[in-house]
Amino acid sequence: MSNKIPYKIYLTEEEMPKSWYNLRSAMIKKPAPLLNPATLKPVTEADLAPVFCEELIKQELDDTTEFFEIPKEIFDFYKMFRPSPLVRAYCLEQALDTPAEIYYKFEGNNTSGSHKLNSAIAQAYYAKKQGLKGVTTETGAGQWGTALSMACAYFKLDCKVYMVKVSYEQKPFRREVMRTYGADVTPSPSMDTEIGKKILAEHPGTTGSLGCAISEAVEKAVTSPGYRYVLGSVLNQVLLHQSIIGLETEAALKKYDIKPDIIVGCAGGGSNLGGLIAPFMRDKIRGKLDARIVAVEPASCPSFTRGKFAYDFADTGKVCPLAKMYTLGSGFIPAPNHAGGLRYHGMSTTLSQLYDDGLLEAVSVPQNDVFEAATRFARTEGILPAPESAHAIKVAMDEAIKCRETGEKKVIVFGLTGTGYFDLVAYKKFNDGELDDYIPTDEDLAKGFAGLPKVDL
Amino acid sequence: MSNKIPYKIYLTEEEMPKSWYNLRSAMIKKPAPLLNPATLKPVTEADLAPVFCEELIKQELDDTTEFFEIPKEIFDFYKMFRPSPLVRAYCLEQALDTPAEIYYKFEGNNTSGSHKLNSAIAQAYYAKKQGLKGVTTETGAGQWGTALSMACAYFKLDCKVYMVKVSYEQKPFRREVMRTYGADVTPSPSMDTEIGKKILAEHPGTTGSLGCAISEAVEKAVTSPGYRYVLGSVLNQVLLHQSIIGLETEAALKKYDIKPDIIVGCAGGGSNLGGLIAPFMRDKIRGKLDARIVAVEPASCPSFTRGKFAYDFADTGKVCPLAKMYTLGSGFIPAPNHAGGLRYHGMSTTLSQLYDDGLLEAVSVPQNDVFEAATRFARTEGILPAPESAHAIKVAMDEAIKCRETGEKKVIVFGLTGTGYFDLVAYKKFNDGELDDYIPTDEDLAKGFAGLPKVDL
Repeated sequence: MSNKIPYKIYLTEEEMPKSWYNLRSAMIKKPAPLLNPATLKPVTEADLAPVFCEELIKQELDDTTEFFEIPKEIFDFYKMFRPSPLVRAYCLEQALDTPAEIYYKFEGNNTSGSHKLNSAIAQAYYAKKQGLKGVTTETGAGQWGTALSMACAYFKLDCKVYMVKVSYEQKPFRREVMRTYGADVTPSPSMDTEIGKKILAEHPGTTGSLGCAISEAVEKAVTSPGYRYVLGSVLNQVLLHQSIIGLETEAALKKYDIKPDIIVGCAGGGSNLGGLIAPFMRDKIRGKLDARIVAVEPASCPSFTRGKFAYDFADTGKVCPLAKMYTLGSGFIPAPNHAGGLRYHGMSTTLSQLYDDGLLEAVSVPQNDVFEAATRFARTEGILPAPESAHAIKVAMDEAIKCRETGEKKVIVFGLTGTGYFDLVAYKKFNDGELDDYIPTDEDLAKGFAGLPKVDL
Repeated sequence: MSNKIPYKIYLTEEEMPKSWYNLRSAMIKKPAPLLNPATLKPVTEADLAPVFCEELIKQELDDTTEFFEIPKEIFDFYKMFRPSPLVRAYCLEQALDTPAEIYYKFEGNNTSGSHKLNSAIAQAYYAKKQGLKGVTTETGAGQWGTALSMACAYFKLDCKVYMVKVSYEQKPFRREVMRTYGADVTPSPSMDTEIGKKILAEHPGTTGSLGCAISEAVEKAVTSPGYRYVLGSVLNQVLLHQSIIGLETEAALKKYDIKPDIIVGCAGGGSNLGGLIAPFMRDKIRGKLDARIVAVEPASCPSFTRGKFAYDFADTGKVCPLAKMYTLGSGFIPAPNHAGGLRYHGMSTTLSQLYDDGLLEAVSVPQNDVFEAATRFARTEGILPAPESAHAIKVAMDEAIKCRETGEKKVIVFGLTGTGYFDLVAYKKFNDGELDDYIPTDEDLAKGFAGLPKVDL
């Protein structure tokens, strides 16, 4: 059987999933509702209408519908870069001398360089359908901003991006790509919004955070007629769109009768992980799949492994709804030396609930180990991974090495969310031995936790 | 029929070509032989042995064998990134409102960002097989150097790259990728070689050229025991390896019974174009295909459209064999404002002969038109193209627009050789309106022609 599995398993257009899968529909304990920050009551469609597109609000609040059909306009766009390949990592297996079978779902084969395009095109479509002029957003490492720029260019929408300052400076070419796609990019915090001005006054010299940039983008959307805010991770709607990753992976595995033993994904806000695991977690909940499902996060921003499961602000400016999630506190700002994405202080409410229920595991890994794994992977499998994705590579490799020691022939599937072409500043630091493994102290974390709101439901 | 053609046509592993095709075997008038610069006699295997790997010399000099089987080790590596998709540009067709069908063979889906990996892995394999320690090479835009670094990492060979200075400076991240793959990168001209020192003394402040960098790499190879020189374009062996592009394209078109009317490729040294057109040119020579085959070159380095068909030095230092080709003279150095690759003064001997025989057409295009086409393509088809590839996009779009005017439903196939992720300095200049359309004057060209050697066979 093994010999018949090709290096890359591609689905045909006919085999591509026609609907997104809503993982919440399978959960016995549903994620806690978002709360209106003014009333501390569960948010309503009306509460969210000034911020989000109508259809996306429906998707956000619906935790019972199993499948949402993918509109034809989105499906046509998907066909330009999907299906993405499920790759059998034959060369890595050989290099690690492991009896394990390693597969990765590679989402980097599009110009945004990551899986973010899956949701960007959906969100742009619904904004266009609603007759809007444009959208605002934030971006951290830059993948989401690039993806949204591409999507907005396709549907001819204005696109205003607040880019976390440290990334804006580390990745000058990312903003040039967005500009080529016609987007307007501003480093955050900026003097462009009231919240940006306030943050700059309180923390002069800050390198920014996703939490700040979200606040600015939301403010800009609600104060600009014909605009709405869109977000690249954390939200349920985003996990819904990203379920295409998991559904394609499931279909590709089924084609060759492969059952996964371990599924690994990196986790920042949770969009890739939530998408990758969607159908597998459903089967696990229903007792039909006995697999470990593992989230990998950076040791410098350890929401799952060292955070609290509590209601928290989604953004630094505290304008967004409160979400019950694993969080480091909305005031937590990761060290500027931390490379790339996975910098968000919180985590998807869906994944947080699954983790709390013991259905999802989590581990954190330090930066240098991640880049070491990335380099080894690049030299073996050819692909230069994004630092974010390399978190998953690191843990997948560790599991494969364990199999070498135990002789177990496990099937390991991981998400390779993107490519590292815009992360060469970080690679250079690693190559020069200048990347350090900053890990927040308990005191650092305590400061973040001190800002958690007191919510008594 | 049209409805059944998917956005991306992928071959299965079984359908992948198992051999490379040697286009010279079909040519009635063979390309003129390379000459030993000392004796002005056709080069022998013995002449080339100090410079090139043994098996590659055989491939270089063989103009009769039709097919060369792809060794298993190379084929296994190919399976990591091949087959590449043949994409039906549905969105571009719609945007151009053309009755034409547009297809592109996309070679950018690998970390080198281009087709160069097809030949890099072959050359590294033969070097390894010969028991060598390492290889030296030059790189212009950086794709070839990246590709070779990847290939050398895979086969555990040393890799020494001389990178044209203007690219080294414009593309700092390219060298970081090569470094991540373990290569040693030097800006050329350098003080590392005798030829480099001489060129720097004669032209202080030069931004370099492929011709200079080739001389340095060759000198380094022949003076370092256990090393040989490898080249990413121009040579027959490279066109042979690149025939995988054309063979896959042919197989993908046949699968859907599509006959091309126009085949378009960009041309620098000719490796992509020679590879893309190989089976189609064979059929054209044999009267089995009535298609136009078009080379597109930059107006700033117009070897075909304004060069001379003559014996010339392949490199600035005049250490390499002489080749009969369309050339601007080995002393020609393109303006530093010219973005990216396609900077070589000469052209593959095979393509030169085909052009001289009227089997191949050529057009040159100015830079701003190229970037305008690139931007339009990016916004429509999603992919951010390399500036090199965008030369082909420009002409393919022009042909599709002509079809709109005439109502003809032509089938246009072009080579999309790579992605522009490392070309953002050039995109920024274009976005800022700072890219100029330098075109060499007749006087500029006369200087290059004055350096042509007098060869009387």
